[in-house]
Amino acid sequence: MTDFNRTRQAFDLPSGITYLDGNSLGPMPTSAAERVSRMMSEEWSRMLITGWNKAGWYAQPRKVGDRIARLIGAGSGQVVMGDTLSIKVFQAVSAARAMRPDRRVILSDSGNFPSDLYVAHGLAAAVDAELRVVAPEDVEAAISDDLAVLMITEVDYRTGRRHDMKALTRKAHEVGALTVWDLAHSAGAVDVALLDCDADFAVGCTYKYLNGGPGAPAFIWVHPQHADKARPILQGWMGHHAPFDFDLDYQPAAGIERMRVGTPPVIAMTALDAALDVWEGVSIDDLRARSIELTEAFIARVEARCPDLVLHSPRDPLQRGSQVGFRHPQAYAVMQALIAEGIIGDFRAPDVLRFGFAPLYNDLGDVERAADGLARILANQSWDRDDYRQRADVT
Amino acid sequence: MTDFNRTRQAFDLPSGITYLDGNSLGPMPTSAAERVSRMMSEEWSRMLITGWNKAGWYAQPRKVGDRIARLIGAGSGQVVMGDTLSIKVFQAVSAARAMRPDRRVILSDSGNFPSDLYVAHGLAAAVDAELRVVAPEDVEAAISDDLAVLMITEVDYRTGRRHDMKALTRKAHEVGALTVWDLAHSAGAVDVALLDCDADFAVGCTYKYLNGGPGAPAFIWVHPQHADKARPILQGWMGHHAPFDFDLDYQPAAGIERMRVGTPPVIAMTALDAALDVWEGVSIDDLRARSIELTEAFIARVEARCPDLVLHSPRDPLQRGSQVGFRHPQAYAVMQALIAEGIIGDFRAPDVLRFGFAPLYNDLGDVERAADGLARILANQSWDRDDYRQRADVT
Repeated sequence: MTDFNRTRQAFDLPSGITYLDGNSLGPMPTSAAERVSRMMSEEWSRMLITGWNKAGWYAQPRKVGDRIARLIGAGSGQVVMGDTLSIKVFQAVSAARAMRPDRRVILSDSGNFPSDLYVAHGLAAAVDAELRVVAPEDVEAAISDDLAVLMITEVDYRTGRRHDMKALTRKAHEVGALTVWDLAHSAGAVDVALLDCDADFAVGCTYKYLNGGPGAPAFIWVHPQHADKARPILQGWMGHHAPFDFDLDYQPAAGIERMRVGTPPVIAMTALDAALDVWEGVSIDDLRARSIELTEAFIARVEARCPDLVLHSPRDPLQRGSQVGFRHPQAYAVMQALIAEGIIGDFRAPDVLRFGFAPLYNDLGDVERAADGLARILANQSWDRDDYRQRADVT
Repeated sequence: MTDFNRTRQAFDLPSGITYLDGNSLGPMPTSAAERVSRMMSEEWSRMLITGWNKAGWYAQPRKVGDRIARLIGAGSGQVVMGDTLSIKVFQAVSAARAMRPDRRVILSDSGNFPSDLYVAHGLAAAVDAELRVVAPEDVEAAISDDLAVLMITEVDYRTGRRHDMKALTRKAHEVGALTVWDLAHSAGAVDVALLDCDADFAVGCTYKYLNGGPGAPAFIWVHPQHADKARPILQGWMGHHAPFDFDLDYQPAAGIERMRVGTPPVIAMTALDAALDVWEGVSIDDLRARSIELTEAFIARVEARCPDLVLHSPRDPLQRGSQVGFRHPQAYAVMQALIAEGIIGDFRAPDVLRFGFAPLYNDLGDVERAADGLARILANQSWDRDDYRQRADVT
């Protein structure tokens, strides 16, 4: 049985704060600051260039990848870290499309995170492919035999709606297409089973439920059956089979290492590595059960107290990630009022109040405080003040 | 007059170490560890998601870019940080090529850092362009009117040979081509003058002479006359004109901001920002003069004491960056012996001993210790031992 009291104590959240925005930026595990400080003072400062070997910096993207593999139903040696999620989306989609050179269509849905669509569109324009975007509920029906790649974010960043990875992958394979799964809102949040679903490519970020810090490195997974064939357009020296031979010609490394591009961000990767310590001893099944317990309790309590809010997430927990969205015409102002009371969720345009539940540190006390705070603010109309009405740049 | 005693004191190099490998990885400025520690404990840990605005994380890639602009002869608002150098090479070359859609040829030279060639080759294969690679001395003659892009690393990573940015740019413009300059071994090392040379695109890394830490973020500069036209293939949400509107369609931001891709690496960027403090009050002309003084002194002292070594860098300091290479048939073993004595340069295949001189912290004492150590090792043949003969993975 996973001890969520232990994991909660690995974080030092500010007092008086109810943090339900870990699906945007996870809080800092207390050990991360010390680990980064040690890396800087004992490794970079003392070992200098020799840190690449002596301190293991060079191998870090693969070692950290192995730690993430366990959380997403993948095997050891199948995940590598680096860059940002947008770059990893580009690599995965371009590699998948190149494996279906006679097909032009990349299919995605309008519930995908916009950056994934921007990246796919930029790629499509450059390589004579076509990005086709349908409504989330129409994805399955839109899988047709002109499809090269199905590119889907498993859990919708606004609604929390979870696509059926296994069913969509099977359907894509039936028409001869490959799948790219974005796990931004899945990794560390739900029970991802990449190998079991027979997915082809997966990518994700690590600054949400994995608590790697703002702008932490992304990950990419390639199914072992494709890993020696996939050619990303982005061919960097760290993905070369012998980077330090300095050949003028690119020869991709075997397996997942070819998805490395440039020099890895060691300081950021060290913070992430420390954050992954918290996951030791955490069972993903327990995590999922706890996540469902928290989101179910939140929906029930909010609906009992806030008649003006409309649930924007699937009611069936099996079709939902680890977040809950509610709609309100003044969602932005309501969220500002809530934040002013120390209850931090976020706003997503045009009218969504979004609350993320991270079993690693959220508990039923957070559920209670957030739901009751929301009820109080709505009842008092305390959101209806000018200072809550400005437009957010970043929330 | 720049005070290089002050800048030297900003670093705490390990005692007994003569560090001449800052052209591979710059040493840690002592303030960097404290700044990162503060960012983690006071910003990430306390502000959580609100740090994007309150702590200025969102604007950081542009603010840090402005600090670098001054060091490379560019203007404020023209440089933005992010990703790795390989990614920035890809963005610059793809944007430049897209501005010359009727031309297929990307010209580079065999002295370029291999990763740049890999990236350009990957791009060329995807977008039906052609990467043409000539010898460094043949670049000028190879600039022909079928050229879309001239992609050159200003200072050769092995020989230190410096290309004439102004002359090559002029020649490229005469045939209607655009230029992409890689400043990896130039920024913080020589007097780069992008605007004065009328260059079109420039990119660089910050973990060498700028001391940003292992895997520190890269930079990209686009000439203001192109900045609102350039379309990189990599279209990420941070380069959108309104990232938090979450539009499904990509609309590039005005100016250099469109070269942003994904969420910026805040922890790493903070280390870099601290490292850039050391550059306050440093005149680039003084830096260049000091660099020439150090490399001239090193060449003279080595040549006087080590008859077996062959200078691999241009003798004319005006054609040289801030590094010196010497060739020796047993270069790898010789460098291992040197490192064992605390004199850290590096080896570049197949037979180059490479020494970088960073005026910010190297002085004539370093020149003396390195040259004399080299002479001693070669005279005693102390490199001729089995334990210096293994193959390096990373040096």
